[in-house]
Amino acid sequence: MPTEHTYKQFDAELEAVRARVLEMGGLVEEQINRAVDALVSGDMDLADQVMAMDHKVNALEVATDEDCTHIIALRQPAASDLRLILTIIKTVTDLERIGDEASKIARMTKKIYEGDRLTGPRYSEIKYMAGLAIKMLHNALDAFARLDTSVAAQLARADMEVDEEFHMITRHLITFMMEDPRTISTVIDLLFVVKALERIGDHSKNMSEYVVYMVKGKDVRHTSIEELEKEA
Amino acid sequence: MPTEHTYKQFDAELEAVRARVLEMGGLVEEQINRAVDALVSGDMDLADQVMAMDHKVNALEVATDEDCTHIIALRQPAASDLRLILTIIKTVTDLERIGDEASKIARMTKKIYEGDRLTGPRYSEIKYMAGLAIKMLHNALDAFARLDTSVAAQLARADMEVDEEFHMITRHLITFMMEDPRTISTVIDLLFVVKALERIGDHSKNMSEYVVYMVKGKDVRHTSIEELEKEA
Repeated sequence: MPTEHTYKQFDAELEAVRARVLEMGGLVEEQINRAVDALVSGDMDLADQVMAMDHKVNALEVATDEDCTHIIALRQPAASDLRLILTIIKTVTDLERIGDEASKIARMTKKIYEGDRLTGPRYSEIKYMAGLAIKMLHNALDAFARLDTSVAAQLARADMEVDEEFHMITRHLITFMMEDPRTISTVIDLLFVVKALERIGDHSKNMSEYVVYMVKGKDVRHTSIEELEKEA
Repeated sequence: MPTEHTYKQFDAELEAVRARVLEMGGLVEEQINRAVDALVSGDMDLADQVMAMDHKVNALEVATDEDCTHIIALRQPAASDLRLILTIIKTVTDLERIGDEASKIARMTKKIYEGDRLTGPRYSEIKYMAGLAIKMLHNALDAFARLDTSVAAQLARADMEVDEEFHMITRHLITFMMEDPRTISTVIDLLFVVKALERIGDHSKNMSEYVVYMVKGKDVRHTSIEELEKEA
């Protein structure tokens, strides 16, 4: 028979693994912030830091998965506890991939500054789009921390805005290249930065959808905004 | 006490969910094959089919996750059974994203053929790279079906080859745009096709790493090729 002691220990384990997800989230947020700052300011130390942080993020992913496996095997969680664990397993996958995207931005930034630097109006647009993506990640982590099911619908809308920014910036970058083909090589690097930001939006949206599953037991992936609003 | 009947039923459930993963894998393979055929041949019906298949792939992802959750909650699997279930949960996420990439290729293909079609030498290179990515996916699914831990090291090498192809084709596409800036818009669409193929390689490599975890209980993500070879 499980004793009260066992329950307390189980709760502490769940709390520890939840805290680890938020730690990983904070680290990944820091990675994107620094990657975007590096791009805008040209501070290559920041870009190096972003890439160096990737090992830590990867290690947190592996450790969290291991914790979750142990909890399932030893505690045999059911209902909402099991949904929390499965949500965490999904969430760390997306967080790790956001970390990869931040590293890509840092790598592209180094390439851009090593080559002929662009002095274009594009950074302000990219900075704006980055702000949207960073806010999406922040809100997704908040939703996880506060078990807030209303964020999924918000992020579905925010993701549409990020996608629109992506298409607009891509069009502008194409015009830029056509006007001055010498910029093509650098602009392609920028295009991959913008693509990485678009992916960060997607991953954040995924994470907010897992929160709905965790709280309500309903899988809302691949559903409409109206469906998400009903679950808010 | 679990009876022999219970064990047989449990085995049948595990077998059913494994079969569903392979069904989903087959569907996703078909999506990429058709997407690449559409790009090379200009057959827009094929491109439409790829996008239409996405709903089926998404539905299989959701249904498989649901099955896995039920199995964990009701059967409380341990050891290798639990690892199988966790591997399946990870695998379907990657499969679903490969399906997304196939849809992206189909969408880009439609854009490319709606605009001024390129008559360049690039399709043969892209076709070659696509062949590598498709083979990676096929081998990853085979590894899952046959519990083959030797595939992870193979796919880590294959992924390096796909990445090299990606960089080479990108360089060629840049030269192409510089020589004829009127092609820029179309070439950017092609660039996103090549990027999608590169991602398919990444996802396939992930899947082969999960197989090592499933069979040996060892998490080999973020490790070196030498480490992967040791587990082969």
